[in-house]
Amino acid sequence: MEKIVRQSMLYDFYGELLTEHQKSIYEEVVNNDLSYSEIAKMNNISRQGVFDMIKRCDKKLEEYEDKLKLVDKFLRAKEQVKKIKECANQLKSINSDENLNKKIEEIEAYSDSILDDF
Amino acid sequence: MEKIVRQSMLYDFYGELLTEHQKSIYEEVVNNDLSYSEIAKMNNISRQGVFDMIKRCDKKLEEYEDKLKLVDKFLRAKEQVKKIKECANQLKSINSDENLNKKIEEIEAYSDSILDDF
Repeated sequence: MEKIVRQSMLYDFYGELLTEHQKSIYEEVVNNDLSYSEIAKMNNISRQGVFDMIKRCDKKLEEYEDKLKLVDKFLRAKEQVKKIKECANQLKSINSDENLNKKIEEIEAYSDSILDDF
Repeated sequence: MEKIVRQSMLYDFYGELLTEHQKSIYEEVVNNDLSYSEIAKMNNISRQGVFDMIKRCDKKLEEYEDKLKLVDKFLRAKEQVKKIKECANQLKSINSDENLNKKIEEIEAYSDSILDDF
């Protein structure tokens, strides 16, 4: 997984456990894709200061995941839901009964609502 | 939701963020259903000490959920997966095509694997 994707995912799950200051800096890097230099200027701290803070936040977020493994759990569930969607798609392509199709579409809708929430 | 069920769920999600000592006492109450008096005797502390520790752990676990809302997120997903299983069941009862049935059973299996993991 690309580093920024993992950072963003860990932040989605555990970001609320960082301090407000850490959150604001981390978001600027991970979500808003600003460079360390830009953030350093904006916050009136050194580039090295930003670098150190991001590293500290990464470590803290990874420690939460090491202990709780909830991102991992969600990713596993997400894979299974995607497979359900694939099955529903395949069902639709081989089925022509209108009543069955309605139920299959319900399954698709439930799958989408799970994936949207994840 | 019954208090013990909620405690057990919060502990499943965030228990690893408690200290080893807190975990061992909390598990004896929540998972092993021992009384405060029994645990007090076993650990050579007062009944009030056990009561206070459980209260402190409850608070800590609820604070994690207040911030992260991951139990809530899982419960929502679980409800949707159960609905997918219901749809699959209904599909099976109104369908007689063997090929379709195989796909429907795949959906059931993926749903079960998600529910087992949750």
